[in-house]
Amino acid sequence: MTRPDGRAPDQLRPVRFTRGWLDHAEGSVLVEYGRTRVLCAASVTEGVPRWRKGSGLGWVTAEYAMLPRATNTRGDRESVKGRVGGRTHEISRLVGRSLRAVVDYRALGENTIVLDCDVLQADGGTRTAAITGAYVALADAVAWLGARTKLPGQPLTGSVAAVSVGIVDGEARLDLPYEEDVRAETDMNVVMTGDGRFVEVQGTAEGAPFDRAELDVLLGLAEGGCAELARLQREALAS
Amino acid sequence: MTRPDGRAPDQLRPVRFTRGWLDHAEGSVLVEYGRTRVLCAASVTEGVPRWRKGSGLGWVTAEYAMLPRATNTRGDRESVKGRVGGRTHEISRLVGRSLRAVVDYRALGENTIVLDCDVLQADGGTRTAAITGAYVALADAVAWLGARTKLPGQPLTGSVAAVSVGIVDGEARLDLPYEEDVRAETDMNVVMTGDGRFVEVQGTAEGAPFDRAELDVLLGLAEGGCAELARLQREALAS
Amino acid sequence: MTRPDGRAPDQLRPVRFTRGWLDHAEGSVLVEYGRTRVLCAASVTEGVPRWRKGSGLGWVTAEYAMLPRATNTRGDRESVKGRVGGRTHEISRLVGRSLRAVVDYRALGENTIVLDCDVLQADGGTRTAAITGAYVALADAVAWLGARTKLPGQPLTGSVAAVSVGIVDGEARLDLPYEEDVRAETDMNVVMTGDGRFVEVQGTAEGAPFDRAELDVLLGLAEGGCAELARLQREALAS
Amino acid sequence: MTRPDGRAPDQLRPVRFTRGWLDHAEGSVLVEYGRTRVLCAASVTEGVPRWRKGSGLGWVTAEYAMLPRATNTRGDRESVKGRVGGRTHEISRLVGRSLRAVVDYRALGENTIVLDCDVLQADGGTRTAAITGAYVALADAVAWLGARTKLPGQPLTGSVAAVSVGIVDGEARLDLPYEEDVRAETDMNVVMTGDGRFVEVQGTAEGAPFDRAELDVLLGLAEGGCAELARLQREALAS
Amino acid sequence: MTRPDGRAPDQLRPVRFTRGWLDHAEGSVLVEYGRTRVLCAASVTEGVPRWRKGSGLGWVTAEYAMLPRATNTRGDRESVKGRVGGRTHEISRLVGRSLRAVVDYRALGENTIVLDCDVLQADGGTRTAAITGAYVALADAVAWLGARTKLPGQPLTGSVAAVSVGIVDGEARLDLPYEEDVRAETDMNVVMTGDGRFVEVQGTAEGAPFDRAELDVLLGLAEGGCAELARLQREALAS
Amino acid sequence: MTRPDGRAPDQLRPVRFTRGWLDHAEGSVLVEYGRTRVLCAASVTEGVPRWRKGSGLGWVTAEYAMLPRATNTRGDRESVKGRVGGRTHEISRLVGRSLRAVVDYRALGENTIVLDCDVLQADGGTRTAAITGAYVALADAVAWLGARTKLPGQPLTGSVAAVSVGIVDGEARLDLPYEEDVRAETDMNVVMTGDGRFVEVQGTAEGAPFDRAELDVLLGLAEGGCAELARLQREALAS
Repeated sequence: MTRPDGRAPDQLRPVRFTRGWLDHAEGSVLVEYGRTRVLCAASVTEGVPRWRKGSGLGWVTAEYAMLPRATNTRGDRESVKGRVGGRTHEISRLVGRSLRAVVDYRALGENTIVLDCDVLQADGGTRTAAITGAYVALADAVAWLGARTKLPGQPLTGSVAAVSVGIVDGEARLDLPYEEDVRAETDMNVVMTGDGRFVEVQGTAEGAPFDRAELDVLLGLAEGGCAELARLQREALAS
Repeated sequence: MTRPDGRAPDQLRPVRFTRGWLDHAEGSVLVEYGRTRVLCAASVTEGVPRWRKGSGLGWVTAEYAMLPRATNTRGDRESVKGRVGGRTHEISRLVGRSLRAVVDYRALGENTIVLDCDVLQADGGTRTAAITGAYVALADAVAWLGARTKLPGQPLTGSVAAVSVGIVDGEARLDLPYEEDVRAETDMNVVMTGDGRFVEVQGTAEGAPFDRAELDVLLGLAEGGCAELARLQREALAS
Repeated sequence: MTRPDGRAPDQLRPVRFTRGWLDHAEGSVLVEYGRTRVLCAASVTEGVPRWRKGSGLGWVTAEYAMLPRATNTRGDRESVKGRVGGRTHEISRLVGRSLRAVVDYRALGENTIVLDCDVLQADGGTRTAAITGAYVALADAVAWLGARTKLPGQPLTGSVAAVSVGIVDGEARLDLPYEEDVRAETDMNVVMTGDGRFVEVQGTAEGAPFDRAELDVLLGLAEGGCAELARLQREALAS
Repeated sequence: MTRPDGRAPDQLRPVRFTRGWLDHAEGSVLVEYGRTRVLCAASVTEGVPRWRKGSGLGWVTAEYAMLPRATNTRGDRESVKGRVGGRTHEISRLVGRSLRAVVDYRALGENTIVLDCDVLQADGGTRTAAITGAYVALADAVAWLGARTKLPGQPLTGSVAAVSVGIVDGEARLDLPYEEDVRAETDMNVVMTGDGRFVEVQGTAEGAPFDRAELDVLLGLAEGGCAELARLQREALAS
Repeated sequence: MTRPDGRAPDQLRPVRFTRGWLDHAEGSVLVEYGRTRVLCAASVTEGVPRWRKGSGLGWVTAEYAMLPRATNTRGDRESVKGRVGGRTHEISRLVGRSLRAVVDYRALGENTIVLDCDVLQADGGTRTAAITGAYVALADAVAWLGARTKLPGQPLTGSVAAVSVGIVDGEARLDLPYEEDVRAETDMNVVMTGDGRFVEVQGTAEGAPFDRAELDVLLGLAEGGCAELARLQREALAS
Repeated sequence: MTRPDGRAPDQLRPVRFTRGWLDHAEGSVLVEYGRTRVLCAASVTEGVPRWRKGSGLGWVTAEYAMLPRATNTRGDRESVKGRVGGRTHEISRLVGRSLRAVVDYRALGENTIVLDCDVLQADGGTRTAAITGAYVALADAVAWLGARTKLPGQPLTGSVAAVSVGIVDGEARLDLPYEEDVRAETDMNVVMTGDGRFVEVQGTAEGAPFDRAELDVLLGLAEGGCAELARLQREALAS
């Protein structure tokens, strides 16, 4: 059994982080998982939303979107349709929750960081690439902020990365491109911290329901993939 | 360690199904998980959406919503705000996917069944109650349809039910009411078929990330809860 | 001439009030006019909308809506369509105006009560049932508030109830179910106080225009119906 | 007791119809009730909405709106707010229903007439002026259509006009300008056919509820006002 | 070569200003360029938008819209469609910018003037008529304000007027009616001050691109037309 | 007098075209005018919008948008706000019109090409860069189409490019970056064909109105800039 791009079942696609892709943003990364390309921009503003004022706590949130021609066939713009679709909403919330899992609000002080994750090209795994890239942009923005302000503490308690796993043709595989994703019987997105704990596990039976044994294999694959991604994030941030 | 309502950690709240709660709907159930009350209505229409016409396949979809005063504090109506919120969208999609996991479209023929799940009162677990109740309404609607039309086959390949599990005060617990839900460090919703396979696993670290051992315990609890719910569904449909 | 359900022309359908149907709301009633079932929830909040602040006056408003499968054929959700329809708007305004006719804002103090009237099942007369039920929920909410706060006075100056009347097959009839409503030549909704005065009169010629004599007969029928409803409201609130 | 403009209680304001105010529309009237000025345009199109195709029946509908500076204080545009308000919706529906009461759809054939009623200046009674003026524009459009096409019959079965009545300072008065309207205890809009029958009766207690005797006086005043308006419509259409 | 209405190539249509067309507005003009009729209303309010508070500067803005039956074929209402179209937005912005070119914000003090330009009938050149008329309404509103308040200075630094020019059948022409506008190869709208300077130049090749020589001829035509319009504005304001 | 980046008044910023930046689109270019970066994607689909079917003519249209963090300060997403703003609308229309000026619809046959111009980073001149880049993407898409289908002719009648010019500190300058743009007294965008004719001229007095002599100088500068851009487009398409 061979994967379309010749990878081993437990192997990631080539992953690349280009830091500082934008001139204005306080942190920015163009992250690539193979042909999937997501531009992650971190915007820092002093102050927090009204419902949080005076609490001494910061805030981190995220928005995910896709350019109309990121995909094989052009999709309509959500701005033109006048509504954000269910899928977009869902992923924006997921990215935000994932990042917040490693944020210490008190250490951040009353500052807000918004992460914009715009998919420039989609080839499967856009939400996982968005999370992994957004963490790097967030780390850069936190460093930028720390260099300008005396923060109450270290706002990041760890790193966070994400990967997809799935069962394709009966085989458990890591980091599915579009071609495998559409054929997967089961599809799971896993978000983990750099020290190997789970932040999100979202598994869906696209075809037949899956049993506990299959679930266990998929979780194992994801643990390996996220560990490798965490290593690559550390490397990128060190350079 | 005691739960607020005195239940054992692996015990469901009292679950009740009132079938035929509505006079017009082809299937309808008022499902209760303790104080959580969801009205599930199944509407059958001949034909399918345009993109599916002529395929010989049926369609099943769902919409979830909450009455403004289902919760402790009144929420604004989404119709008045002019948009469906991200949470509502996300749950509607989850309920639809969960039901479709046990539907044989070919056996349903070109018929559409819409499941409306309206939360009349919310006390935690509204999405899981919605799935479990919607299955019963769906079964009634399928029976109604089968009694009127010669269907190509048996449209339901099994049953489906859902339950929440979480870690509260360091203890893994089944079927969280609101009071426990807000305090949970980890919160997971699990959807399973009546024969014990997984349809959806959605786990989120609300507080600290969780490790693999905790994840395994939670999955075990959910397996027990879903098995019990499947038994209660069978009972309700038999009566 | 016989009505489909065997009632006399001047007879109401069986009317039932179930107070306290919800656990969270400060006042709640499930009101039934035959098969028409409306859940009325009263939500009390301290303070008033901005344009009324500092006036010493309270505020009462209402929202009416219908579940998608309340009717014989499923209707689209207004939240999904992204707009509240004209009929919904119109009835929400009518319910609010009707209740405000018996409210003394000064006696209420700077408190707001919102009445949510959600039609769970529709069989004609949903707006009149909503008004009649909302009054009972409002009375409960006012009592709840009075028990917790020292109010400047008695906020309710009387009771309010509503009923439909119409001309069907040339005969004037009280409290039309859907089956009669669609065949009515003239359809009138009348809102009255408990002491027999008019708050709203809304008559529409659905078929042929009506003359003054017919109008007078309909008004008489409505006076009788509203008096009976006021009696039933008093009974319900006394129990 | 004197009215602000010196009129007798049962006297209309000066009413003026300027037919053919627009060059493009198939029928158009600038109607004035004192300082209230409404531009009514009738647009004829061949064919009917999809749900009516092949029925052999025509369709008549109406839209009402107000220019932002029609009133004393500028109001926001509904197009800019992105939604049609409840009041606008309600009046558009009322105007449409009122006109349809005198239309024979079969005689109209499969043609559609849309009446646009735009309030250029508002001084009370805009909805009643809109109805009265729209009828004249409709009559012109029907004549235009009849001159070009062989219609199955005479599409108008009569005329329709409307007027407001109210109780101001304890006195029943006809055709209230804004100054009286805001002070009215009771406000009623009455739509009648040219032969003296009722199409719509909409009475609202703005202050204290009203009793049956007051209601009877108001209905009598409205009957007189509508008869006079019908006479003025005939005159305008004859010239 | 003859124009459809017999005008010389450099001749305006009959232009008419009816000042004070509305009773409530602080300034109002019904402006006519031939059959094009635009109602311009100026609304003065004390204070400025929030982002300008405390600056000592005033604000002037404009909104442009068209009645549904201003045109030959009825257009849908933007309020009903729920969005302001691109063309409407674009013209509203153009009108506002044009007026602001002759406003001295400091002299106006912290007051806001909104210009509503509603096209009652359209026959080409609606945006240019709107600008020319809006200036007159603005001048009246400024006079109204000056008569009631001590302003810091003279808020108007000059006058502003606009006209369309275009190349039709190879000939450069001034002030195109609809009939010429739709056939124009090039269409240009020019906004100028009363002392002959340019505020806006918007030229578009509808058919073939145009060369520098043609552009120069068109600019010359526009200079003549705007000078004549400025004279007519002065006359209207003097009467 | 020196420009902030040391350029001569009639000098363009460094312009770069990266063709084939996307893998899926039929034509795609990342265009850069200095730090302004716009991703232009051309999507080809067989067939045309409904109103054009059966005409034998093709269709070309464009949509322009900006990523939230393209600018110095993050802007809200138009999809989240639920409406496309006036500026976005205006520019989308401008880009579409500009490209259509060099398209022969008959030669294109019944095919549609949509140009998506997404600003990844903004530093002044985004609309002009979008037009210039979109032409290159369009040329690639036309070539792609011609290689797959027998087209009725050569769909492009020439090339099109755009540049901004303005008066800054009293000096006429070419291709303004943001820093100059905000300080410009007059700002003009000019769109020209490769053979030196005008497609669009949009000049706006941001500060004081400008006279004919200034206008003439600006037009001359733009002619030079567009000629240079046309040369760079040819070079890019040749490589």
